[in-house]
Amino acid sequence: MPPLYQYDHSQLNIDSLLAETDRHGIEYTLDASARDAKANTKHSPAPPNETPLAVFLPRSTQETSIILRACNERRIAVTSFSGGTSFGGALTATKGGVCVSFERMQEIVALHEDDMDVVVQPGLGWVELNEQIQDLGVFFPIDPAPGAKIGGMIAMSCSGTNAYRYGTMKENVVSLTFVLASGRIIKTHNRPRKSSAGYDLTHLLIGSEGTLGLVTEAVLRLSPLPQNMHVGIAAFPSFQAGVAVVLQLQKTGHKLEALELADGPQMQATNVSGLAPRQRFEEVPTLFFKIAGPSGRVVRDQIQIMERLCREHGAASLEISRDDERMAVLWGARKCMGQALLAMKRRPDDLFLHSDCAVPISNLAALVEGTQRLIAEAAAANQGDWFCANVGHVGDGNVHSAIVCPVSDYAAAKTVLGDVARLALRLQGTVTGEHGVGIELRDALLEEVGGEGVEAMRAVKRAWDERGILNPDKVFALERGEEDTVASKL
Amino acid sequence: MPPLYQYDHSQLNIDSLLAETDRHGIEYTLDASARDAKANTKHSPAPPNETPLAVFLPRSTQETSIILRACNERRIAVTSFSGGTSFGGALTATKGGVCVSFERMQEIVALHEDDMDVVVQPGLGWVELNEQIQDLGVFFPIDPAPGAKIGGMIAMSCSGTNAYRYGTMKENVVSLTFVLASGRIIKTHNRPRKSSAGYDLTHLLIGSEGTLGLVTEAVLRLSPLPQNMHVGIAAFPSFQAGVAVVLQLQKTGHKLEALELADGPQMQATNVSGLAPRQRFEEVPTLFFKIAGPSGRVVRDQIQIMERLCREHGAASLEISRDDERMAVLWGARKCMGQALLAMKRRPDDLFLHSDCAVPISNLAALVEGTQRLIAEAAAANQGDWFCANVGHVGDGNVHSAIVCPVSDYAAAKTVLGDVARLALRLQGTVTGEHGVGIELRDALLEEVGGEGVEAMRAVKRAWDERGILNPDKVFALERGEEDTVASKL
Repeated sequence: MPPLYQYDHSQLNIDSLLAETDRHGIEYTLDASARDAKANTKHSPAPPNETPLAVFLPRSTQETSIILRACNERRIAVTSFSGGTSFGGALTATKGGVCVSFERMQEIVALHEDDMDVVVQPGLGWVELNEQIQDLGVFFPIDPAPGAKIGGMIAMSCSGTNAYRYGTMKENVVSLTFVLASGRIIKTHNRPRKSSAGYDLTHLLIGSEGTLGLVTEAVLRLSPLPQNMHVGIAAFPSFQAGVAVVLQLQKTGHKLEALELADGPQMQATNVSGLAPRQRFEEVPTLFFKIAGPSGRVVRDQIQIMERLCREHGAASLEISRDDERMAVLWGARKCMGQALLAMKRRPDDLFLHSDCAVPISNLAALVEGTQRLIAEAAAANQGDWFCANVGHVGDGNVHSAIVCPVSDYAAAKTVLGDVARLALRLQGTVTGEHGVGIELRDALLEEVGGEGVEAMRAVKRAWDERGILNPDKVFALERGEEDTVASKL
Repeated sequence: MPPLYQYDHSQLNIDSLLAETDRHGIEYTLDASARDAKANTKHSPAPPNETPLAVFLPRSTQETSIILRACNERRIAVTSFSGGTSFGGALTATKGGVCVSFERMQEIVALHEDDMDVVVQPGLGWVELNEQIQDLGVFFPIDPAPGAKIGGMIAMSCSGTNAYRYGTMKENVVSLTFVLASGRIIKTHNRPRKSSAGYDLTHLLIGSEGTLGLVTEAVLRLSPLPQNMHVGIAAFPSFQAGVAVVLQLQKTGHKLEALELADGPQMQATNVSGLAPRQRFEEVPTLFFKIAGPSGRVVRDQIQIMERLCREHGAASLEISRDDERMAVLWGARKCMGQALLAMKRRPDDLFLHSDCAVPISNLAALVEGTQRLIAEAAAANQGDWFCANVGHVGDGNVHSAIVCPVSDYAAAKTVLGDVARLALRLQGTVTGEHGVGIELRDALLEEVGGEGVEAMRAVKRAWDERGILNPDKVFALERGEEDTVASKL
């Protein structure tokens, strides 16, 4: 059987595409470094030659539609780009083709203060959005990497340290306008806070990693800016003790602003890195938390509860501060943790790999212990000089386990991260809590949802993108059998 | 072109189906009243003869899979049934065929107290679920009609008075196990609180009204039972004044337990019905609310704020009570409102019709005023003796506008409800906030999401249910052109 999907990326065909988009006055660049930058990011380096042949810079939904229709007619693959902070190869132009970059679409289209929603274009960053609306006392609470843009945040279904309190992208996008491979434009809803009108196409797009449609406008739900902010930090004798505080807390009905738990090695990395100046931390499991609320009384209640719970679970130290400078030091230590791990490299070319599993919170300590053991065993087997650290969005049961190891141990490190993902699945979890699948977690996704689950996703992909032009090879292989033999046809 | 979908509901084919399911020991009934009860409910009466030919009573995911595979092979249409409280004809067996009823699957499969989630079968009611878990201090917060079961609640993406505080089904289902038309079994995830692993099949099923797959197991998120409960009621000079309180409230960051707003005629109906004994209400716009919180201090804060906001917006009266009996009287008045409208019938055969639109909250008063005007105009044009009342889940911008009118004005009443839906769309809303589309709102859905939107949904349907056996004709017509002429192919 011939392959379902065939592309024509010949110069002739690309020239024909550019001639057509030129007729509509649509901007593009052929500059080599611009093209390379779209597929080959710091977080997700592309293999050589897997870069787009042209980068389109649409200014509207309509221009995006014209580009996609023209690409679809010509069987030209399309990747899309907004902030470029995703992991796992989600942006790699595996088939070549062209890129649609949303850097000319960074506007707030409409702000509805009374309804606490905002209509934005996909190239707008969450940081920039929040800068523009903070004077109104509201914010968009999803906090991935600072460079992330709304379009990519929707594509990857991201979250961050605020998700425990405010939910992920899935809970904070009201509706979407997106363009299908055919160029057809879909608006999922207007701006109602809830709807039961037909299939939930909004959520189908969120997390589809640019494979089903390109989002050109989004209605986002805003939240009141937290008030009476406090930051707390508590050191525990074990990771489990920190988890137990969180389990108890959630039964009280109190909801803090954020809950993050780092293990001893992660605290060591923070110390070694020097990225948290004026502070040396105990190198033991440490809970970072934020408390805020609409009144001082609410906050005092929560402080009392956290003081009691930390004491009951054997915290060796506890500090809760409302001083701006002190809060910046303490929370800054949490925010620098990804970067801090780079300080644990022994050699400049050492690798830094990490996981993104999420499990039911009661299984989080088992996941971290199991991960530490798996990595220690793998390091020993490789006579390796490996470093392992864990930091979790503990309120969501989501943990990033990091490995720093010699470049020669790449294969072994990847293998052990696969074992970690399998452990998360045995512990009733998911292989990716917030980073998405990209290329690297395709096999893990197959283990999570099974051949039937992947084939059901693939059927949706085929239904909406018959020629497979949108971000091919991401989330799952385009054709069954490329990646799995266990799946059977629906 | 021949129709894509053809069914064979001949006696021979049905007998062959029953012979196959018999071999697997799967229970069914051919009893006429049992069959009729599955398609012809109080809320959604079916035309004569649109009832299933047999009702299957599976006891497991595996049995459900066997039934669907056998039906699919034989081109037999399948409706599904759990509580039967849906509106709009969602349960009607328009093609005949068979029904799968989940009355033998009412179990709690697993309860995870620490993780605050529960695994349930689709035939379990939310009321029964909450009775079984209340001693643990937790509950499942979605509160549609008391007879609703989890399977139907997922199918219809329902909500209720708690949605403002806790979200809808979309925010409270962790993952699903469902069976495709082919019999293939999909488990969307395990039990992580969040996941970015692949397309969001969980949300694709929620609100798909039994047309994409039959849910056989669901993981639900639980919440701590509200503590320190108070119920409040405030009378306002205008509907807009009540809405304004809610708009102000949400900017403070305080979140009450529930916020419901009724107009004067709705309060009149409550008085006339006698369903709220020991209480006669002012027949003016009235805000009902619940306040609760993990500590008395939190609750006192919220009481103070509501007292201030109600005063500032001209409330003629305000009562906030923590007395159990008094709370039951006040909230009971809210809960009886649907039933109370029946008291406004002048003749036994008078019709009671209603809408389910949701708009951005700032547009809610405009929707209610416009609805009152549209209905008054239609009543005058029909020299009719119509009654119109509105009650809204104001925290979500969702309002049920009711018409009570002579049976002879059926067509005129349906027309005006169509106009109300169109008004909601102009006000940036949706035609159904929580009841779903069924058959009756198919045209309205088309106006909401356009031909492209419906065709995108239809493409998913075709991809997963090639022969169109699952709840045909619901949400949209199976074949384009049956309902719309504006849609063009994707």
